[in-house]
Amino acid sequence: MSGFQKKFVEEITSRDVDFAKWYTDIVKKAELIDYSSVKGCMVIRPNGYAIWENIQKDLDARFKKTGHQNVYMPLFIPESLLQKEKDHVEGFAPEVAWVTHGGEQKLSERLCVRPTSETLFCEHYANIIHSYRDLPKLYNQWCSVVRWEKTTRPFLRSLEFLWQEGHTAHENEQEAREETLKMLEVYKNFCEESLAIPVVCGQKTEKEKFAGAVETYTIESLMHDGKALQSGTTHYFGDGFAKAFGIQYSDKNNTLSYVHQTSWGVSTRLIGAIIMVHGDDSGLVLPPVIAPTQLAIIPIAMHKEGVLDAAENLASRLADFRVTLDSSDNSPGWKFSEYEMLGVPVRLEIGPKDIEKNQAVLVRRDTREKVFVSLDNIENEVATLLDNIQRDMLSRARKFLQSHTYDVTDFDKLCEDASKKSGLFRAMWCGSEKCEEKIKEHASLSSRCIPFEQKPLSDKCICCDKDAKKLVYWGKAY
Amino acid sequence: MSGFQKKFVEEITSRDVDFAKWYTDIVKKAELIDYSSVKGCMVIRPNGYAIWENIQKDLDARFKKTGHQNVYMPLFIPESLLQKEKDHVEGFAPEVAWVTHGGEQKLSERLCVRPTSETLFCEHYANIIHSYRDLPKLYNQWCSVVRWEKTTRPFLRSLEFLWQEGHTAHENEQEAREETLKMLEVYKNFCEESLAIPVVCGQKTEKEKFAGAVETYTIESLMHDGKALQSGTTHYFGDGFAKAFGIQYSDKNNTLSYVHQTSWGVSTRLIGAIIMVHGDDSGLVLPPVIAPTQLAIIPIAMHKEGVLDAAENLASRLADFRVTLDSSDNSPGWKFSEYEMLGVPVRLEIGPKDIEKNQAVLVRRDTREKVFVSLDNIENEVATLLDNIQRDMLSRARKFLQSHTYDVTDFDKLCEDASKKSGLFRAMWCGSEKCEEKIKEHASLSSRCIPFEQKPLSDKCICCDKDAKKLVYWGKAY
Repeated sequence: MSGFQKKFVEEITSRDVDFAKWYTDIVKKAELIDYSSVKGCMVIRPNGYAIWENIQKDLDARFKKTGHQNVYMPLFIPESLLQKEKDHVEGFAPEVAWVTHGGEQKLSERLCVRPTSETLFCEHYANIIHSYRDLPKLYNQWCSVVRWEKTTRPFLRSLEFLWQEGHTAHENEQEAREETLKMLEVYKNFCEESLAIPVVCGQKTEKEKFAGAVETYTIESLMHDGKALQSGTTHYFGDGFAKAFGIQYSDKNNTLSYVHQTSWGVSTRLIGAIIMVHGDDSGLVLPPVIAPTQLAIIPIAMHKEGVLDAAENLASRLADFRVTLDSSDNSPGWKFSEYEMLGVPVRLEIGPKDIEKNQAVLVRRDTREKVFVSLDNIENEVATLLDNIQRDMLSRARKFLQSHTYDVTDFDKLCEDASKKSGLFRAMWCGSEKCEEKIKEHASLSSRCIPFEQKPLSDKCICCDKDAKKLVYWGKAY
Repeated sequence: MSGFQKKFVEEITSRDVDFAKWYTDIVKKAELIDYSSVKGCMVIRPNGYAIWENIQKDLDARFKKTGHQNVYMPLFIPESLLQKEKDHVEGFAPEVAWVTHGGEQKLSERLCVRPTSETLFCEHYANIIHSYRDLPKLYNQWCSVVRWEKTTRPFLRSLEFLWQEGHTAHENEQEAREETLKMLEVYKNFCEESLAIPVVCGQKTEKEKFAGAVETYTIESLMHDGKALQSGTTHYFGDGFAKAFGIQYSDKNNTLSYVHQTSWGVSTRLIGAIIMVHGDDSGLVLPPVIAPTQLAIIPIAMHKEGVLDAAENLASRLADFRVTLDSSDNSPGWKFSEYEMLGVPVRLEIGPKDIEKNQAVLVRRDTREKVFVSLDNIENEVATLLDNIQRDMLSRARKFLQSHTYDVTDFDKLCEDASKKSGLFRAMWCGSEKCEEKIKEHASLSSRCIPFEQKPLSDKCICCDKDAKKLVYWGKAY
């Protein structure tokens, strides 16, 4: 390792020494974000935005495949519109940004910058839904939303963030409930297949559900520091919003009914999850499916005859992948560190000796494993390697999740364990908010979800000894 | 024409009777937009948003091909940041929305919702540009911006609109000037190749240029009512912003220099242009390259054996195109009108007689021309027809532009002509703002652009008889 290279690598705080600082170092050094003069708002730089573009492309195809259409709603919500659904406004009003002036004029009614767009979709649905023939409406929008948070961290919690929000309207409860679970499944599959992040799926408790929802479902992932990250949610609204906004349709018998609604969203927070699940002390480690660059070709002894030609030839042979050829005058060592920091899944080295032997060197970012492969079959070698990396990353993350999931049946042990180790704690719960709060107070754990797979660990609540109703995942969370 | 179909069509105001009303009818009836409770903000519905998605995809590929990268900047600009460049703030401050409260707290400094993001890009560039190695920076962002307009019209002028804004920083004037013209060329090619809209390219006068720019360039298109639409602009900033924001780099000799900058943008206004250039009394007419649906398959006598099967078979054979098969129980006549309204370029009819003859009927939306084609070769027939439609739409629009462009050398004639007919008037100009204002006052025409092709019509200004400096396009504009 050259002096320069060593220094480059040493610039990141070690993940196990100070996870929070390691995280901040990575988002800065991998040039994912820059801070701006609006506290809590970030600039998403090309390296960060390219990840988001790939997330969008992948998810958007999944949404369209399940029959959803994209729309765009206004950025602003009049105060009176936000107030139409009581629980919803109570949840969001304390954290919205208010526009009071347009140009030099004071507005007659304040507008809030959307924190989420249920109210706008409802107003629109009330306009356009009249008959059962107009249903279902399966809409989604990609946009930014604003929530006036006090403590912010890049990607994880910021004043403004990018997301998608699906909003659907259905003829009846069953259809809406199916949609709520179907989209949770879409999120789960996306996280596991594309981001190589395993998730726990389940329902949120009453305390943790979305403002205005009847039920909220979540996918929870586990970061390398043992904290959970709520990575996506879907909500079943029943006909509460429909009643507040008057969204009625006449059914086949000409009877007026209220629609049943859902909403669901994931955000740039997923980039935070990718960093914290896969990253290491050399920087980002990106899953091949979502990596903006999948393969970095680095010529060795570039000044020697034939090297650059061979590298260029490989770049064009491998153009079906997202390839970059770095022919800059930086040293190979510098380049190795650079593409490690950026998390590029595979590095290809080619030098005079390799050309002689009709081979190239492929180095995996995740394991640093080095293999020599024949140039004859390089397209297949790269394809297979990328597949393997994707699969192995998921499987490693799954093992980590499993080995950091603990079954606990005793309250004192839960408190003690939670003070010593981090991860997801599975424990039985009676269903009362009081016990949920007590666990929060004594073990600093919040309920993450009530998983779909319910295998009782005991018949008593871990907290109050009353009859247990549910197995719950508890954890410290971002 | 069935009674129902007739009624459907009659619902639109005729284009030649009331162009403004025709336009509003189309955006509503083709379900491109819905109004919202925030005056001047629109809901972009699936039919409208799908056009924008195709515009984005096409343009984004052109931006990436020319080396640009996407980023995302904050939605808010602190008042003090907006004020850093004097001309810029004077141009925009009167028309911005101000956020004064976050949650329940009054902010110590007002934030404006971005009307455009020069100031944010400059702040970021000052952070990240240090050396000539950091240049050029070729960034673009897709987002929404807000301008507090008093009079609004869907797509053409709204309080909030979707757009892209490119912002670049270069080592020197020459590179930045080349970028400014290169992006104008990208816009021109996109409009002509993809939207089938011919444009006039040129420079804006001092009076009409962007707030803070040294020079502004524009592509101007001509709507069917003879009004011009500024369809895209690119700006050369010199080092004015760089000096205001302190964006300096050390060159190869270690000397500090200011960067030279550009910006450029197009918006959802282009959807307005597509409507007003190509639409007719039956609705939208979409150019095939950008049409969300290129081909609508309509089974005739659908209840007859084999018809639906044949239609489905065709849909799968033609899946390389953007195809919709309408097997709903609406009448064929209703469907014809529906897809005409939506502007789908080609309608394919298939019924029992066609199946017998191994043929299908293809109907062009633009000319309503009907051809019978063999099923054997249907993929090629459709491909060729779509190409022809795209080419013919551009050529028709070009003829319209040419036949509505008038050379004038006499001021009284200009005033008289402008009161009688609409279009683009080419006339010589001395370069003074006074004459520009006089033409505005007497002929109700504003300067659209100083075209790159300068062929003098006379040697005198049409207004003041002083020596003419430039040939200028004048017109009424949206």
